[in-house]
Amino acid sequence: MSSEFGKILKVSVFGQSHGAAIGVNIDGLPAGEEVDLEELQAFLDRRRPGKSPLSTARKEADVPEFLSGLENGRTCGAPLCAVIRNSDQHSKDYAELQDKPRPGHADYTAWVKWKGFADMRGGGHFSGRLTAPLCIAGGIARQILARRGVYVGAHLRSAGNIWDEPFPDRLTAELFEEIAAKPFPILNDQYGEFMQGVIEKTRRDLNSVGGVIECAAIGLPAGLGDPMFDGVENRLAAALFGIPAVKGVEFGDGFAAARTRGSENNDRFAMEHGRVVATTNHAGGILGGITTGMPVLLRVAIKPTPSIGKPQKTVSLSAMENTDLEIHGRHDPCIAHRAVPVVEAVTATVILDLMLEGNHGTL
Amino acid sequence: MSSEFGKILKVSVFGQSHGAAIGVNIDGLPAGEEVDLEELQAFLDRRRPGKSPLSTARKEADVPEFLSGLENGRTCGAPLCAVIRNSDQHSKDYAELQDKPRPGHADYTAWVKWKGFADMRGGGHFSGRLTAPLCIAGGIARQILARRGVYVGAHLRSAGNIWDEPFPDRLTAELFEEIAAKPFPILNDQYGEFMQGVIEKTRRDLNSVGGVIECAAIGLPAGLGDPMFDGVENRLAAALFGIPAVKGVEFGDGFAAARTRGSENNDRFAMEHGRVVATTNHAGGILGGITTGMPVLLRVAIKPTPSIGKPQKTVSLSAMENTDLEIHGRHDPCIAHRAVPVVEAVTATVILDLMLEGNHGTL
Amino acid sequence: MSSEFGKILKVSVFGQSHGAAIGVNIDGLPAGEEVDLEELQAFLDRRRPGKSPLSTARKEADVPEFLSGLENGRTCGAPLCAVIRNSDQHSKDYAELQDKPRPGHADYTAWVKWKGFADMRGGGHFSGRLTAPLCIAGGIARQILARRGVYVGAHLRSAGNIWDEPFPDRLTAELFEEIAAKPFPILNDQYGEFMQGVIEKTRRDLNSVGGVIECAAIGLPAGLGDPMFDGVENRLAAALFGIPAVKGVEFGDGFAAARTRGSENNDRFAMEHGRVVATTNHAGGILGGITTGMPVLLRVAIKPTPSIGKPQKTVSLSAMENTDLEIHGRHDPCIAHRAVPVVEAVTATVILDLMLEGNHGTL
Amino acid sequence: MSSEFGKILKVSVFGQSHGAAIGVNIDGLPAGEEVDLEELQAFLDRRRPGKSPLSTARKEADVPEFLSGLENGRTCGAPLCAVIRNSDQHSKDYAELQDKPRPGHADYTAWVKWKGFADMRGGGHFSGRLTAPLCIAGGIARQILARRGVYVGAHLRSAGNIWDEPFPDRLTAELFEEIAAKPFPILNDQYGEFMQGVIEKTRRDLNSVGGVIECAAIGLPAGLGDPMFDGVENRLAAALFGIPAVKGVEFGDGFAAARTRGSENNDRFAMEHGRVVATTNHAGGILGGITTGMPVLLRVAIKPTPSIGKPQKTVSLSAMENTDLEIHGRHDPCIAHRAVPVVEAVTATVILDLMLEGNHGTL
Repeated sequence: MSSEFGKILKVSVFGQSHGAAIGVNIDGLPAGEEVDLEELQAFLDRRRPGKSPLSTARKEADVPEFLSGLENGRTCGAPLCAVIRNSDQHSKDYAELQDKPRPGHADYTAWVKWKGFADMRGGGHFSGRLTAPLCIAGGIARQILARRGVYVGAHLRSAGNIWDEPFPDRLTAELFEEIAAKPFPILNDQYGEFMQGVIEKTRRDLNSVGGVIECAAIGLPAGLGDPMFDGVENRLAAALFGIPAVKGVEFGDGFAAARTRGSENNDRFAMEHGRVVATTNHAGGILGGITTGMPVLLRVAIKPTPSIGKPQKTVSLSAMENTDLEIHGRHDPCIAHRAVPVVEAVTATVILDLMLEGNHGTL
Repeated sequence: MSSEFGKILKVSVFGQSHGAAIGVNIDGLPAGEEVDLEELQAFLDRRRPGKSPLSTARKEADVPEFLSGLENGRTCGAPLCAVIRNSDQHSKDYAELQDKPRPGHADYTAWVKWKGFADMRGGGHFSGRLTAPLCIAGGIARQILARRGVYVGAHLRSAGNIWDEPFPDRLTAELFEEIAAKPFPILNDQYGEFMQGVIEKTRRDLNSVGGVIECAAIGLPAGLGDPMFDGVENRLAAALFGIPAVKGVEFGDGFAAARTRGSENNDRFAMEHGRVVATTNHAGGILGGITTGMPVLLRVAIKPTPSIGKPQKTVSLSAMENTDLEIHGRHDPCIAHRAVPVVEAVTATVILDLMLEGNHGTL
Repeated sequence: MSSEFGKILKVSVFGQSHGAAIGVNIDGLPAGEEVDLEELQAFLDRRRPGKSPLSTARKEADVPEFLSGLENGRTCGAPLCAVIRNSDQHSKDYAELQDKPRPGHADYTAWVKWKGFADMRGGGHFSGRLTAPLCIAGGIARQILARRGVYVGAHLRSAGNIWDEPFPDRLTAELFEEIAAKPFPILNDQYGEFMQGVIEKTRRDLNSVGGVIECAAIGLPAGLGDPMFDGVENRLAAALFGIPAVKGVEFGDGFAAARTRGSENNDRFAMEHGRVVATTNHAGGILGGITTGMPVLLRVAIKPTPSIGKPQKTVSLSAMENTDLEIHGRHDPCIAHRAVPVVEAVTATVILDLMLEGNHGTL
Repeated sequence: MSSEFGKILKVSVFGQSHGAAIGVNIDGLPAGEEVDLEELQAFLDRRRPGKSPLSTARKEADVPEFLSGLENGRTCGAPLCAVIRNSDQHSKDYAELQDKPRPGHADYTAWVKWKGFADMRGGGHFSGRLTAPLCIAGGIARQILARRGVYVGAHLRSAGNIWDEPFPDRLTAELFEEIAAKPFPILNDQYGEFMQGVIEKTRRDLNSVGGVIECAAIGLPAGLGDPMFDGVENRLAAALFGIPAVKGVEFGDGFAAARTRGSENNDRFAMEHGRVVATTNHAGGILGGITTGMPVLLRVAIKPTPSIGKPQKTVSLSAMENTDLEIHGRHDPCIAHRAVPVVEAVTATVILDLMLEGNHGTL
């Protein structure tokens, strides 16, 4: 197995939802980078549970402790390990689930793979809780990138059938900050209200709903990434599919591009202030796997939370027979809005990794 | 850069569209596997150009020569290197393009990355022609998998706005063969006619059109893949985005899942003939990155071919000014149908790689 | 940077000598494996400092806390993270050294690499203290291997000019245990006394001395490892050079083989109880990078501890001028004897990784 | 398996001794680098067989054909694939050996690993012939490095019991060239005569002899390499053990350092022309895995060629009984002198890879 991604910057995630702690080990951070802990905590708080009826009632402070790699507020070159102790565990909620795999969850596949030894309380290592350590890595990456004029932002593009506006052509760090400051990460608050209504209703229905997240990175130089299997798309997709519940990733116009004509989809090159630019960005800032210098733009599909209160049918792994399942415990009626900073975090980390390759094979 | 993918089975692709040869080096094939060269050639012929007005007029026999790794018709354990000589090069068609990057192509990003030393005749190393070596690897992987009861098949799910039926719930090797035998890889030939009409029309319009490919793998054991960043989705996506023109990858219901409720999207587990099965397959055979034993199902978005006959606007890299561009040469009005075997090839190769990990961390 | 090794089993080490904690994250352990914590602690105690005048006076209990991956005494498939809090730090001993790089240490190279931001107190991340987490990984690997009949043992082959006997031809788990139980890990205790005398004398001389460690693994199947760059030698050497102070690695007769004739060095094959064996083992159990089924035998050269009490000459990095240096603090007159379990740990971890590849490219 | 090494610059070797061709695919070369083919051929000729009675009588022109990656004499960024056709195959010499594994060779381990499907004619993929493709990669790397003032050279430090002088403290590109121009790569020709006498005698005795190669790289910046498992020593050792017959690798004083005191082995730092230098180089230019800016110095132990004319005892794999073996065919009485450019090639390739990482984790 490999709960790790990255090439120069390697991010390893560990922990189980109801184990002693969760955490991350980050190997390859540049040395001498300041980490603003207050800003980092604000970033972590964006995905933290227990803040509203739209998310799980589990309460976790989610304050990381830094075991290594950070001295006097700066990275020191050595691997940075940060841990978050689990506090609000209700493990007994999960006793029944060790035998009855929850539909849509990794309970069954983990049982097959690890022969019944998996710690699947609360989803174990597959839990959405593991995205907190990803946000530690991404929160640090964001700060390092921002000092180089590279900014990553995201919004909830849809929840169920309600769609926010797409990102505008002109993206700025200020817009990203504005969205991040909102309790519900959306461009158009009117649509946000509708979405929250939908989520609230699915909660009351003991059900859940999915959503789409749109993420962008601006300020990137042209020339990042490599052809074929080491391109920006390959590396972002490989990492983004590591976020639990992600079932699709697309860049630029993505699946919509498949319906268009070349004359519409091709981004015309033009000179602007002495620089080559593309006058549109259907490509999402990536051609041949390599950045064009335009914003990198991607969307991620998040399936509805598999844990729902409605009674479901499944099997008993001990009896090997069909059975009924009622999931108690605390669950999110929607994880897509809480996953917005997670998608930012993973995107920022991959982009920092790409930038750390630096001269990319030139001397 | 890294024109390579795979972990146990490493596939490295080399060559430029108008260079001496293209080829593939495959490191990690199991030894003693027969390679039926006739069957392999039939597979390669499915993507071969020059067969109909729906694809480029470039004529290439695309018959691989095996330099190593194959002795007496069997793999011998050592790396297998196969090359295809380029024959029908019209390099002079590309002289102008060295200075004028084609919109939607990697010409500009390659120029930035390689400081003008890139061989971009016909797209160079970024050309769709590089998918022929991928098909050599995939064609061999398919034969090895088939001997273990694992089959991979695909069809063109859409071209422009015309959509084929989705794969049926019950998938068989026979169905895959049936599609593969058709000149146009489609389930419902009626829709296929419409699609060909669309492609033919875009050709006459000096334009191009995109499409979506749906691919499935059946016969897989449950338990392949690893959590988080080394899952089946991560590895397939990382490789599939290496196929030129791919802009989106989704598994199971993918982006559509984001619009549904958990009660609809969760696949209920049930006992069938003493085995745990899922009664639906919204998950596309993958939960937590690990195979469930149900068919792995994915879709890939292919953008419209960027090379179109219509006049376009771009820049001159030598003069650093805006200019007009008219692309001559031979081009595909649609590459999505020719990419169908390529998606099968990459999928089969990744799945063989996953299976070669074998016991996956158990002893 | 990459403080990680392994392919299926990835071991990441973090921490600095005088930071909050040191630790290890192990990704890819098979699930369901018991970890006998008492046995593990006994293994860790073999390298623990503060036990005798032959090693540093720093006192550390070195008891790991398990944050993840271990539930009810068994591995659960998820990454196993274990940390050891640093307790007996005398950071002030190191204030002067931040400016004056100690000869033979990584102080200068870390300063160049990390532009002065490195935490070099006590060697920082380069400290021999980082071998404690390696022993956690190796101690667990040893237990898993022992259940499969694979045993790893080592002894101090030399300290300064005093040499222990080489390992006998017939190696057993009992012999390994016998050596491990000794306070000084040696075959012939008479030579051990001499060595301890040499080490004790160098301590009184405010000097230090190096040594050679011989390590063997028995019970391995034939066929582990891969040709050329992924062989058993390549992988063991790559990991063993990660132990601080290692300056040479050799297998079988190693450098001595370079002086012999083929007729002496070739190990004759013969049948024994229906199995192919080699009647001698000059190859150290490895031919073409692949195990023969004979014991894997290797030796590692450990340079003398660079930290010595004798006054030395170095430079001031702030003044950029020559200066004098007197190292205070607590140091080992010899680290070779304490490194014996570390070499076992790294060897065991690499071998477990090789075994986890399992069928090694066959299906 | 993995006949590949490198991180940014990946070198994959393919081919079997008596197959159609051998070759190398190099992924990640910087674009725009001139390759002087004459100089490259001169480098390849240094290891080419058939030139003297001191090496095998097999005659191969060993002129590479470039299939990709090299256009108009310059690298173009895309992977560079070069092949050498095998011409002087005497495959029938090897019929008997398919059943009777040669002592000291990989015949037996390949048979175990690949279940009898291995092509072991002339050692197959394990043959020393596979070092020709390594020299193509290394020969190109040397040219690229030389343009940056980095030079790699080597000499035969010993053959049997005869030892050449060690490299002098002051190393220059001129000295490396001088040695490279000699038919026998040695510092002191007098010792070279003795060595050639020893080799000639072992040839007449139908025997073989090993040797030690000393290699150095000069002009390297301080700060290359990373701590622990990704250091310069780890990466060089991992690659160097990929050269057939290498049984030991050491850096700086290596195994000799294990016999010394810290006061002798520590290299004192001092200011010289405003730069920090080490006044001695016992460390071989590497501390903590990172270059100090002093010459990188290493030695490699080459075992005696396992193929000898003397009758030997082995087993019949078909009959599973002891048998006699007489090896005919053409063999080297010593391969150490021919391996000198191979060690240079691998060292140069690894160093270029390290340099291509460039800023090494800084931005």
